[in-house]
Amino acid sequence: MAQDKKAVEAITPINEDFGQWYTDIVKKAELVDYSAVKGCVILRPYGYAIWENIQAILDRMFKETGHENVSMPLFIPESLLQKEKDHVEGFAPEVAWVTQGGSEPLAERLCVRPTSETLFCDHFSRVIHSYRDLPMLYNQWCSVVRWEKSTRPFLRSREFLWQEGHTMHETAAEAEQETQRMLDIYREFCEKYLKIPVLAGRKTDKEKFAGAVATYTIEAMMHDGKSLQSGTSHYFGDGFARAFDVKFAARDNSLQYPHQTSWGVSTRIIGAIIMTHGDDNGLILPPAVAPIQVVVVPIAAHKEGVLEAAASLAEKLKAAGLRVKLDDSEQSPGWKFAQHEMRGVPLRIELGPRDIEAGQCVAVRRDTGEKAILPLEGLENGAKELLSALEGGIFERALKNREQRTTACADMAELEAAVAKGPGFYKSMWCGDRACEEAMKERLEISSRCLPFEQERLSDVCPVCGKKAEHMIVWGSAY
Amino acid sequence: MAQDKKAVEAITPINEDFGQWYTDIVKKAELVDYSAVKGCVILRPYGYAIWENIQAILDRMFKETGHENVSMPLFIPESLLQKEKDHVEGFAPEVAWVTQGGSEPLAERLCVRPTSETLFCDHFSRVIHSYRDLPMLYNQWCSVVRWEKSTRPFLRSREFLWQEGHTMHETAAEAEQETQRMLDIYREFCEKYLKIPVLAGRKTDKEKFAGAVATYTIEAMMHDGKSLQSGTSHYFGDGFARAFDVKFAARDNSLQYPHQTSWGVSTRIIGAIIMTHGDDNGLILPPAVAPIQVVVVPIAAHKEGVLEAAASLAEKLKAAGLRVKLDDSEQSPGWKFAQHEMRGVPLRIELGPRDIEAGQCVAVRRDTGEKAILPLEGLENGAKELLSALEGGIFERALKNREQRTTACADMAELEAAVAKGPGFYKSMWCGDRACEEAMKERLEISSRCLPFEQERLSDVCPVCGKKAEHMIVWGSAY
Repeated sequence: MAQDKKAVEAITPINEDFGQWYTDIVKKAELVDYSAVKGCVILRPYGYAIWENIQAILDRMFKETGHENVSMPLFIPESLLQKEKDHVEGFAPEVAWVTQGGSEPLAERLCVRPTSETLFCDHFSRVIHSYRDLPMLYNQWCSVVRWEKSTRPFLRSREFLWQEGHTMHETAAEAEQETQRMLDIYREFCEKYLKIPVLAGRKTDKEKFAGAVATYTIEAMMHDGKSLQSGTSHYFGDGFARAFDVKFAARDNSLQYPHQTSWGVSTRIIGAIIMTHGDDNGLILPPAVAPIQVVVVPIAAHKEGVLEAAASLAEKLKAAGLRVKLDDSEQSPGWKFAQHEMRGVPLRIELGPRDIEAGQCVAVRRDTGEKAILPLEGLENGAKELLSALEGGIFERALKNREQRTTACADMAELEAAVAKGPGFYKSMWCGDRACEEAMKERLEISSRCLPFEQERLSDVCPVCGKKAEHMIVWGSAY
Repeated sequence: MAQDKKAVEAITPINEDFGQWYTDIVKKAELVDYSAVKGCVILRPYGYAIWENIQAILDRMFKETGHENVSMPLFIPESLLQKEKDHVEGFAPEVAWVTQGGSEPLAERLCVRPTSETLFCDHFSRVIHSYRDLPMLYNQWCSVVRWEKSTRPFLRSREFLWQEGHTMHETAAEAEQETQRMLDIYREFCEKYLKIPVLAGRKTDKEKFAGAVATYTIEAMMHDGKSLQSGTSHYFGDGFARAFDVKFAARDNSLQYPHQTSWGVSTRIIGAIIMTHGDDNGLILPPAVAPIQVVVVPIAAHKEGVLEAAASLAEKLKAAGLRVKLDDSEQSPGWKFAQHEMRGVPLRIELGPRDIEAGQCVAVRRDTGEKAILPLEGLENGAKELLSALEGGIFERALKNREQRTTACADMAELEAAVAKGPGFYKSMWCGDRACEEAMKERLEISSRCLPFEQERLSDVCPVCGKKAEHMIVWGSAY
């Protein structure tokens, strides 16, 4: 059928033009629509449902670790933004300013929050009095605005949805521990639920968050070898607390500044899902966040009893806790196959008259396309096993891609050779000097991704300056 | 104890100064904190948790009726806002304008959404092609901004959280039906879950939403007799569709404009909960949205086994699906009682050494203060029964307040007498002329609340002009 082809042909092959493939997917799988404001996208039902599933899992993980949700205002008065010097320098160039309210110009302009450290600290200064109020473990789900020049759905937009955690602690050690704990929750979330392997480590001073003492990151490698920063967790020391005069009466009755963290994951992670798992046929969604985990397609649906059998099978799978869609639309089976493949539905169940007679159905995994004949009796378990196998499969495939594209480099020649081979992670030693980090960016057009927690000793010297190496660092090019 | 008193004395008596009582509650029950921007509040964990519970219930009701969530941008270009004439006239005077992005002035200023009809219609114009795409049943959870002059937490703020549903339909009849269906969901939500009786009806043309053909409303009466508009549902006809050129190929292949609705409930509803159910001791939260439904307070907690018994009792109640807090803090029982009463926890369970010995506990309802001795065996059911009794009790009390403050008035003299007695609902007939509606506002300082669906015949003529009466209308003064 013409329509069958239309659905599939419209996607650019993944290895022909990865950027165009990505753009095709986000539009044709109906994840987003572009809005009237450049760089601000509309999340359509299918795209937003992925975000709702992400929210549900992360929110549970946050609450299980004692965090509470709050809601902060959208606007930050300019004077408040300016209280912490490094922070304002980092963010002021890319914020949107409200200068008029109703028909009157504002006495002080307000920035639309690019992140909310300043708002949280202003609040903390009023509600933290004693060590008994600590730790204060807050999170909020909201959107933030950064006036980016070049934009791309999910990856870089002028407005994006995220969660931002903000916590205050009695001691530096406790805050450091929180910073690591939340990074670890992000790592677990990516690997266990999204099936995206991540590299965890610390950002260099050059790449850390504006105003932070230390920034920790998880970096995922996309299909094309480029890196995507998928979650960050920041340790602030008491810098913001001093700037905002947040103090508490300590156990010894002295007045002290609390120690702070913040951490965030955004809708960028949907971009990571697309670019880690997708293929020539479209999206491949990890079951934990897929809006539809199983699609049931009746074959020869006009024949007696087929639609009814398909419907009751769908109900049975739903009752087992799966998210199921029965596609009883008028389209041909072939069109439906292509459509649901493009939209990344992990498992397809086909059910025709002969299947019904034989008490079985055909199950097709989205990642491998493998067909399995499954008995209808106990299909819930069979479907769950296939979903679980798919989870293992896409994780392994992503891991293998990362391994193939990761090169350990002992010196500059090896780095140059690795970069020439194509995008990936390039491991090397580093002296710790910003000058060498900048030189690397200049010479090889790569940036530092992180200093991995799992350090190796590849050589004794920094490949740039030849001085003593302090760390192993991972380089790459990033989205 | 001094602290016991402090917690309670700090609230102004409800009948002494209702406004101050309200302000005391929202601050001292830790629902909100004021932010650095006038009229924008911070929802603290306890206040936000109420909103999360409201969201969970409404979101389920929306999804059960086929609605899908989406996310629209925060910004509306001025040219887009201006496309529908009545709409822009209604909203332009109270929007916040972004005029600068990063370091550059914007070519076109952007308003921060006060509501999103224009954004949805712009999107609909791109995604609606055929009758097969209809109905399109969308909702979003977000915040909106209206630059109000005088503000009050929950009731009127410059930024507030809400949900806005936006739907498009093949026929006017179907859209009208949707408008009514969603109002009915709001009514059910208020009465069944929040235990707030509401009056449902249609707004007059003067009071309807900017750009709507008809606005339907549910009006709740607060403790002081004033009215609070608690949810609205609008029917737009095809006015916006024409303005935004949204067209679809109908079943007969002709190009037609779809018919539209929108509907919303906001954090105002938390103000309604406070002002409907609260009393001199503070908040009274309906169990369905209370962050803590049962607080367990150990008595003589230093005695052996008391804390353990209280903890296991709390676990047992949690396992039965209740939201439970064990208050094992160092405060005195009296302070805890006052504190949790102020915060509106529906049920308190006290457990001391003698109770444990007797296999029982003391259960105290927040609304009546009644104490009941309950056996520990089967306490889950006993607690649920008391919560259910409280639900009935607070609904009845609110209904009684409304009945006592509702007066049927046959003529102007009766209206004047009723208004003189104090705030309430004043029912009268009305000719349907805007001039008479405005005259009423002028003379008695009351506004029309709605034309109730349940109409009565109180007289034959409009009390203002003496012409033939067309409707029964309800007047009141509103928050």
